[in-house]
Amino acid sequence: MPRYAFRIEYDGGPFAGWQRQDGPASVQQTLEEALRVLEPAMPAIAAAGRTDAGVHATGQVAHAELARDWDPFRLSEAVNHHLRPAPVAITAGARVADGWHARFSAVERRYTYRIVARRAPLVLDRGQAWRVPGPLDADAMRAGAAHLVGRHDFTTFRASICQAASPVKSLDEIAVEALPHPGGQEIRLHLRARSFLHNQVRSIAGTLERVGAGAWPPGRVAEVLAARDRAACGPVAPPDGLCLTGVGYPADPFG
Amino acid sequence: MPRYAFRIEYDGGPFAGWQRQDGPASVQQTLEEALRVLEPAMPAIAAAGRTDAGVHATGQVAHAELARDWDPFRLSEAVNHHLRPAPVAITAGARVADGWHARFSAVERRYTYRIVARRAPLVLDRGQAWRVPGPLDADAMRAGAAHLVGRHDFTTFRASICQAASPVKSLDEIAVEALPHPGGQEIRLHLRARSFLHNQVRSIAGTLERVGAGAWPPGRVAEVLAARDRAACGPVAPPDGLCLTGVGYPADPFG
Repeated sequence: MPRYAFRIEYDGGPFAGWQRQDGPASVQQTLEEALRVLEPAMPAIAAAGRTDAGVHATGQVAHAELARDWDPFRLSEAVNHHLRPAPVAITAGARVADGWHARFSAVERRYTYRIVARRAPLVLDRGQAWRVPGPLDADAMRAGAAHLVGRHDFTTFRASICQAASPVKSLDEIAVEALPHPGGQEIRLHLRARSFLHNQVRSIAGTLERVGAGAWPPGRVAEVLAARDRAACGPVAPPDGLCLTGVGYPADPFG
Repeated sequence: MPRYAFRIEYDGGPFAGWQRQDGPASVQQTLEEALRVLEPAMPAIAAAGRTDAGVHATGQVAHAELARDWDPFRLSEAVNHHLRPAPVAITAGARVADGWHARFSAVERRYTYRIVARRAPLVLDRGQAWRVPGPLDADAMRAGAAHLVGRHDFTTFRASICQAASPVKSLDEIAVEALPHPGGQEIRLHLRARSFLHNQVRSIAGTLERVGAGAWPPGRVAEVLAARDRAACGPVAPPDGLCLTGVGYPADPFG
């Protein structure tokens, strides 16, 4: 059957996460229901990153097998029509080879974690950033983040329910971007790796916030990493600030 | 009575606009109610820019007269507490001189208009940008905008209900910022002037969108300006994309 890849944006706020499950609606279920308006017998879809409840995406990628030979642009437009008013939209669509898999063909995931340091509650960014009272020292956060880049046992930064076979991962980059923000400042953490452990980005964000706030010296990040002990981790940052911004493949299906 | 200035952020979506009126809640009314929890007899507050329904702010400025001698920081924190859960927050507070007036002391207003050009409906920016199918030519928009900078009769770009004494205004700057956006592109128009006419920014944004889309040559902006005729204007852009980002005073009260 013809296979299609989609790049997907969603507001994770109202969803139980990406994955189909009992209970509240998942993003997967919402997207499958829109696709099944077009093809009721469509099999389950697969995504590159199984984001948790409340986590957003601007660059999630999923693939679907459809019986008909669709023009990818017209297919994306039709699915977007049926997705309304859910806060989910397809921003790119492409035909891919039969063996291509959104998850198993992926060679890179990119996440951004937004922290807004200010006293006032969030208004225009409500639900899309983690507010902390601040201020945050971006240079200290960079120094702390540097200890995490490279190939390490990330047991400290891994949820106890994580199902990955190994806690050893290569973290290719953590860029710490400092931006002005009304009434305070904003820090964006940009992380890039082949794959991440469950809660790894939120565990790192919560730890680096402690460093930025001056509660932890940057060197403590190296110590808690070396401890390989979940209990040594900083607080896990809330899902609001996290966004899956992109997935890399050997050849960009949307290029 | 001691006078206090506040810098205010709000999501204009649920409000009837800044100004107190019959019918749906206004931002002014919402803020006055929070302040009157502290001082029930407080007189009406005044703001630098009377934004329309649906228009946002990150840098609105208003002043209030209070009977008590408040610490500005503690006052802001208390008002933010009473504002919850309304999407309005004070991001800075200061004591100002008795003669200082948020509107009449202001010497500059800054607005940003966000246009997202993509096929997919907006998700994470829903209600905070104007979506057009695009694409938009930023250079053509810059060429069109250049005709508007300076001192002109802006009758073409003024709502028929505008109450300003004169249609002649000096527009100090229109910067056209082009940004990447998932599934398309984003254009941010940054406008700066001592003051604006009613609907002036949205009329300019709607006109420059026509230029960016290729429907109007840039030179037509000069023609419609010279026409001094409201009917010559492009479509008025929706309020969603508009944000009052800052107000300038001879001395920054929050500096």
